[in-house]
Amino acid sequence: MSLRLIAIGGTFDKVYDPVTGTLGFGRTCLPELLEAARIEPPPPISALMLVDSLDMSDAHRATVVAACRHCEEEALVLVHGTDTMTDTAAAIAAAGLEKCVVLTGAMVPARCAGSDAPFNLGFAAAAALLLPHGVWIAINGAIHAWDEVRKNRDLARFERIEPPTQASPA
Amino acid sequence: MSLRLIAIGGTFDKVYDPVTGTLGFGRTCLPELLEAARIEPPPPISALMLVDSLDMSDAHRATVVAACRHCEEEALVLVHGTDTMTDTAAAIAAAGLEKCVVLTGAMVPARCAGSDAPFNLGFAAAAALLLPHGVWIAINGAIHAWDEVRKNRDLARFERIEPPTQASPA
Amino acid sequence: MSLRLIAIGGTFDKVYDPVTGTLGFGRTCLPELLEAARIEPPPPISALMLVDSLDMSDAHRATVVAACRHCEEEALVLVHGTDTMTDTAAAIAAAGLEKCVVLTGAMVPARCAGSDAPFNLGFAAAAALLLPHGVWIAINGAIHAWDEVRKNRDLARFERIEPPTQASPA
Amino acid sequence: MSLRLIAIGGTFDKVYDPVTGTLGFGRTCLPELLEAARIEPPPPISALMLVDSLDMSDAHRATVVAACRHCEEEALVLVHGTDTMTDTAAAIAAAGLEKCVVLTGAMVPARCAGSDAPFNLGFAAAAALLLPHGVWIAINGAIHAWDEVRKNRDLARFERIEPPTQASPA
Repeated sequence: MSLRLIAIGGTFDKVYDPVTGTLGFGRTCLPELLEAARIEPPPPISALMLVDSLDMSDAHRATVVAACRHCEEEALVLVHGTDTMTDTAAAIAAAGLEKCVVLTGAMVPARCAGSDAPFNLGFAAAAALLLPHGVWIAINGAIHAWDEVRKNRDLARFERIEPPTQASPA
Repeated sequence: MSLRLIAIGGTFDKVYDPVTGTLGFGRTCLPELLEAARIEPPPPISALMLVDSLDMSDAHRATVVAACRHCEEEALVLVHGTDTMTDTAAAIAAAGLEKCVVLTGAMVPARCAGSDAPFNLGFAAAAALLLPHGVWIAINGAIHAWDEVRKNRDLARFERIEPPTQASPA
Repeated sequence: MSLRLIAIGGTFDKVYDPVTGTLGFGRTCLPELLEAARIEPPPPISALMLVDSLDMSDAHRATVVAACRHCEEEALVLVHGTDTMTDTAAAIAAAGLEKCVVLTGAMVPARCAGSDAPFNLGFAAAAALLLPHGVWIAINGAIHAWDEVRKNRDLARFERIEPPTQASPA
Repeated sequence: MSLRLIAIGGTFDKVYDPVTGTLGFGRTCLPELLEAARIEPPPPISALMLVDSLDMSDAHRATVVAACRHCEEEALVLVHGTDTMTDTAAAIAAAGLEKCVVLTGAMVPARCAGSDAPFNLGFAAAAALLLPHGVWIAINGAIHAWDEVRKNRDLARFERIEPPTQASPA
C-alpha cells in the first residue's frame, strides 16, 4: 500500500522568527524529516497549507478533504495542529473515503530540541500502512479512532473518551 | 496491548568517543528519545546490552530470546544493529513466542544529525501495537516478515527477498 | 584571567512550553552548552535570573550590577535578552567596575534548530578573555563598545552607531 | 579587520557514513554553522581540503600556508584536525606572515550531539579579531601561542607547555 504525507501546519511545523520573536510558519520541515527517515522510494509530500489549527476554517477543512479524496494513495498521514485535529478528522470521516487516513502532529515543534515530531511521523506512517480504512489519530505512542479521543490542553496530550452512542429508537 | 522497549545496541545507540576518535557505546539513548515521544504512561525499557551486531554471539542471542520470553508485555520493540538483525530475528522466531516482536535499528546513530533513529522508533512502536504475533523487521518506513528481508550493505538499506520455500516432497 | 558566566535570560534561554504553546523560561541551558564546550576547568555559572529583556526593571539591573561587582572573576560573560541589552550595559558602565564585562545573547533560542547561541557564547568568552576592562557587546561575530551599538529590530541584528559626543564647553 | 574561515578537515567536519559505518568527510559544515551565527556580512569560506589531521603531509601544509599568505584578509580562522594542529601551526609560523592566524577544531564532530564545534568556531573568530599578528590555537575556551601547547590525547584536550627555550650562547 502506498503512502502520502500531507502538511497542513500546526505546532509540528512552527519555526522561530527572530524578527517577531514568536513562532510562525515558513516552509514545512517534512522533506528534511523524510530524508532522515531514509524511506525508499520516498513517499510524496503534499505541502497543502501551513495553518495554526485554531485558525482553520470550514474552507480549510474542505480543501483537506478534497486533497485526501483526489490523491491516488490509500494510506495518508496528515500533519495537523493538535487543537482542532479531531474537527478535521470528523470532516474527513463524513466524506466516507475508502482510505486509511491518519492524523498526527506534535506537542513541540520539529525544529525545537526534544520534539516529538520525528517519532510521531514514524508512528503515524506505520499506523497508516497497517490500520484498516477509516480515520485515526496516532500521536505520542497511542492510536485512537477519530471519535474516541480529545486533546487535554492542560496536560498537552490526547486522551481516550467514550465513543458517541447512537440515539436509541423510541 | 502494552509495549516494552529492549535496547540491544547497534548503530542506533553509538556515540562519538573523543578520546579514541571512534564511535562506541556508552548508555542507551532510548530514555531521552522516549521522553521526547511523550508516551503516557511511558513504556518500560530493558537496557539489556549494547553490542555491535557484528559482535553478537549465540549467547547474546539466547539472552535476547530469554528477555523476550520472560517479560510480561506482548508488544516488544527491539533496538538492534542492522547487520545481523535477521539472525537475531530467526533465533526469536525459533522460540515460538506468543508475542509481537518488532526489530528496528538505525542507519545513522541517534546522536548524529539527520538520524533515522526517532522515526524508526515511532514506526516500530506502532508496528508492535498493530501487527499480529510473530517476528517482524520495521525500519525506514517498511515492514517485513523476518524471513523475507535482508540488509543490502552497499546501499545501507533493507530489501525484500522471497520467503524460503518449503522443501517439496519427493 | 578567570571567567564567569551569568545567566540573565532573553531569547537565548527560551524554551517551548507545550501547554501554553509559547516560548517561556525553564532553567538556563548554559550548563549543557558549557559541557559541550569542554572548557577545563569549567567556568562557574551564576544563574542570576531568567527574564525577558523587555520586562527588565531598574531593580533587575541593580541585581545584575551587584552580581558583576561582587564576584571574584574579572572576565564576565552576561547572557541577556537583546532588546534592552544596551540599557543593562549602560547601568554596568555607570558602576565603573575594574572588569571586562561582555554582554551577549541570541537571536534564536539555544534549544531551537539553527540557533546562534553556542557560537555567540564562544565568541563572547574569547572577547571577555582578550578585551581590556570595560563594557562590551559581542554577538553574531561583531564586537562593539557598549555605547556604539543599537539593535535594529526590523533586521534582528545589532549595528554600529556613532558614540555619543561630549557636550562642548560653552 | 576582516575575517576569513579556512576549512582543512579534522574531527570538526566528520560525518557518519551509513554504508561504511564509520566517520568520514563529505562537505564542510562551515556554511551552515556560519548561517546560524548570523554574521553580517558573512565572512568568506575557503573550502581548502578535508583531511584527517593524521594524514596531513608536508604538501598539504604547504597548501595551507599558501592559502593563508595569498588571501586578502588579515584575520584567519583555520578549522583543522586536533592531532597535528601544532605541526601545521609551526609551518605557518615559519612563513612569518603579517596576519593573525587562529587554528581551531573540535573534539566531537559538528554533526554529532554535544559537539564543541560551534562554540569553538565563535571562540576562534573573536580571538582572530582581537589577538595581535601571530599564530595561535584557540579551542575549548583556552587561547595558546602555537608553541606553548600540545594535545593530550588521553584526555582529548590541549594543555599548556613551556615555550621552547633558545639555545644559550656558548
